Amino acid sequence: MAAEAARAEGPPLPRPPGGRPRQICSRPYFVVLMVFAHLYVLNVLGLLLFVHLSAGDGPGPGPPPASEPAPAAPGPRGDARRPPALPRREGIKVGHKQKVELVPNKVHFMKTLSLKPLLFEIPDFLTEEECKLIIHLAQLKGLQKSQILPTEDYEEAMEMIEISQMDIFNLLDHNQDGQLQLKEVLTHTRLGNGRWMTPQSIREMYTAVKADPDGNGVLSLEEFKQLNIRDFHKYMGSQKVKMSDLVRNSQHTWLYQGEGAHQVMRSIRERVMRLTRLPPEIVEHSEPLQVVRYDQGGHYHAHVDSGPVFPETACSHTKLITNESAPFETSCRYVTVLFYLNNVTGGGETIFPIADNRTYEEMSLIQNDVDLRDTRKNCDKGNLRVKPQQGTAVFWYNYLSDGEGWVGDLDEYSLHGGCLVTRGTKWIANNWINVDPNKRRQLQFQQEMARYAKEGDEAQNEWTVDKSYSNVHVEL
Amino acid sequence: MAAEAARAEGPPLPRPPGGRPRQICSRPYFVVLMVFAHLYVLNVLGLLLFVHLSAGDGPGPGPPPASEPAPAAPGPRGDARRPPALPRREGIKVGHKQKVELVPNKVHFMKTLSLKPLLFEIPDFLTEEECKLIIHLAQLKGLQKSQILPTEDYEEAMEMIEISQMDIFNLLDHNQDGQLQLKEVLTHTRLGNGRWMTPQSIREMYTAVKADPDGNGVLSLEEFKQLNIRDFHKYMGSQKVKMSDLVRNSQHTWLYQGEGAHQVMRSIRERVMRLTRLPPEIVEHSEPLQVVRYDQGGHYHAHVDSGPVFPETACSHTKLITNESAPFETSCRYVTVLFYLNNVTGGGETIFPIADNRTYEEMSLIQNDVDLRDTRKNCDKGNLRVKPQQGTAVFWYNYLSDGEGWVGDLDEYSLHGGCLVTRGTKWIANNWINVDPNKRRQLQFQQEMARYAKEGDEAQNEWTVDKSYSNVHVEL
Repeated sequence: MAAEAARAEGPPLPRPPGGRPRQICSRPYFVVLMVFAHLYVLNVLGLLLFVHLSAGDGPGPGPPPASEPAPAAPGPRGDARRPPALPRREGIKVGHKQKVELVPNKVHFMKTLSLKPLLFEIPDFLTEEECKLIIHLAQLKGLQKSQILPTEDYEEAMEMIEISQMDIFNLLDHNQDGQLQLKEVLTHTRLGNGRWMTPQSIREMYTAVKADPDGNGVLSLEEFKQLNIRDFHKYMGSQKVKMSDLVRNSQHTWLYQGEGAHQVMRSIRERVMRLTRLPPEIVEHSEPLQVVRYDQGGHYHAHVDSGPVFPETACSHTKLITNESAPFETSCRYVTVLFYLNNVTGGGETIFPIADNRTYEEMSLIQNDVDLRDTRKNCDKGNLRVKPQQGTAVFWYNYLSDGEGWVGDLDEYSLHGGCLVTRGTKWIANNWINVDPNKRRQLQFQQEMARYAKEGDEAQNEWTVDKSYSNVHVEL
Repeated sequence: MAAEAARAEGPPLPRPPGGRPRQICSRPYFVVLMVFAHLYVLNVLGLLLFVHLSAGDGPGPGPPPASEPAPAAPGPRGDARRPPALPRREGIKVGHKQKVELVPNKVHFMKTLSLKPLLFEIPDFLTEEECKLIIHLAQLKGLQKSQILPTEDYEEAMEMIEISQMDIFNLLDHNQDGQLQLKEVLTHTRLGNGRWMTPQSIREMYTAVKADPDGNGVLSLEEFKQLNIRDFHKYMGSQKVKMSDLVRNSQHTWLYQGEGAHQVMRSIRERVMRLTRLPPEIVEHSEPLQVVRYDQGGHYHAHVDSGPVFPETACSHTKLITNESAPFETSCRYVTVLFYLNNVTGGGETIFPIADNRTYEEMSLIQNDVDLRDTRKNCDKGNLRVKPQQGTAVFWYNYLSDGEGWVGDLDEYSLHGGCLVTRGTKWIANNWINVDPNKRRQLQFQQEMARYAKEGDEAQNEWTVDKSYSNVHVEL
């Protein structure tokens, strides 16, 4: 999901001036990528890796090797002699409170909300005035829909792929029992092409395309073989889709936080550095602030903010500079800092449905037609629900440590969503801190970014448009 | 439990020569201490703290203050300038494997078994020969019963306390519903005075002392008031108790690991330092190696290896040197390293019944007459079971971090036990690493121990008896 989000709605990442303009891959490659990424995401990755390994031409699955620690050039404020490492905050235990120094002469307390994911809450991270200012700046800039209604690109792409019905069946048949249970279909959210699938909607689809004659909600291999995939796509295309049927129903925009930005925006970035203790050269080259508005009826079904990382996966932020081609791409958001900008009249909590569960099994997210990821229906059944409180920040790690002071595997427990706003409007903002799990690539990226900054070349110019509001005096 | 274990079966801790011989507290004090520690442990502590706080004469509950970092004298190999801190191994996630360097020219792998408690498994930590040697040394030294059958001390002490029946009722009535459920009685294991209580045995007791006329297993306040506590003790005293009825059914001894000990014993201590990365001055002054034998039918019901720590709690190892009087005492075992010395023919697993549970509730350990702590009956229902494998070590933290690099609160998830040995004999050994959660006291202790070591005085003599086997050549 995040992989697509990064591509489709990517923020204006700082771009090296010499680099090629951000481009969509050439067509046949793109089709393959898109279909694969869309259709099965994790399972296909697993399969590809398996094939890849069997062919004996790859280093094997798992995170990239701890990386040849390149002779690191210092970042803007980095120290070339110390080996770079990413400190992680300690959670200790749920409910633990620790002091954090974010601004002079004020003490903040950070409370541990869960260990899986490692998740904290910091009340009064922003003042009321700062919250209002951010909302105002976002409104001045203008917000756009976070997700648009499905297009036909997908259908078009589907018609071009060559993958046998049998292969699709096997990929979907998670428990390999020769039958497709509803939840096996549901977990492949990409089948819905942006539309959120529910047990109900899948049953309706089965009925429409006559896929499940015995009406038991389960497709046998026999039943699946007789299904014409085109009928399925035709049906999907013919469906009226409302915003509330989508994975995500909100509007958002991006606010620049770099040098020369509004002092409040700069100050928030500074606080995020102090909060996370991550190196300035990493935080400064991360995505701008995303401001999101959920109107009444808005939601965001549960998702992870970044994707799993395999040797074949590139990070959106380092991809151009390291100039590596890779079949998969994700946003590599090591940390999410989420700010609540207002008090919501009804609903709009942030839900972590499986936080601190003993074990993680993708399939156990859906039990007896109850899909814990569904934030319009099942927020009351999730493990941890954070109520929006103006000025409060929550922050968590989307990736585990690799045990050597760098980014490791995706933390699947970081699954989270925005519950249905039942009354009023909900305003939040997100700061993501992007780190490439491949340390060599991250260091190369920082080195290049530092060089551009020093040269003060056109890279700066690109930011001018965003800087326009930086000195605006705003009446609130 | 651990508090008592430390007192009743404490190992020969290195003792400062000038110090008073280890003594039982003077009588009235002892009675109060014993009765309290026995009867309600946690609840009483909570109550005492409450009273204490209400009287406004204490620093409040929770671990001792981060401690005035005393101008630390260097330990044997310590560095006075670096602030002392206790590194913790990273767990990352269940199943994570990391290399550890324990001995030259050999790589060991450490696998994370759980995060709550932080628990690892290291195969081949000991060689087969080392395992055999340890067993042999233990046999040479001789083993004694780990728990003796109940004595009358307890009954005697009980008769001297003055606490109203109403107060006892309130302390036992965990959920404050005005009734004593079976599990509320069961969790106060001290009521059994060493005998393991089961729903069945409590029902029998109720019948014998006519405590529960309506026979529903629940005591109302009315029923409890009519109960004569002496009848209860008389009944307990009259019961024939078998070893298998006890909390712990094993034999054990202690093996010296300090300077001059058998080189294998020294080498194991060295490996434990490398494994845990804890400072030598802490590991060297920890308890000797405990070797335990469980015969067929042996077990150890689930327990924690150390107790909760409050400002009033002293650690067994620092108590004499810091010369502080305290109403409570525990063994302050920061880390447990458990070695499996043989392969067990049947049973004998180590069970962590609630490892990685989402939440901890003492009462949820007992549900519908199923007591998860019962390692004779319910090992199959616990979360994590480690099968003995000769040479394998498991190690875990009994305390959380305090977030400042020192020992914090007891980790209740560290609850563990030894499952019933259904066939054959089970041999294990335990290395505990003792750290005082009060940093000042720990540093004072290390300072004194270093001074004694330097002076080479009588402290050495005390160890002579243990050293006798250090140069023995053992035929295995």
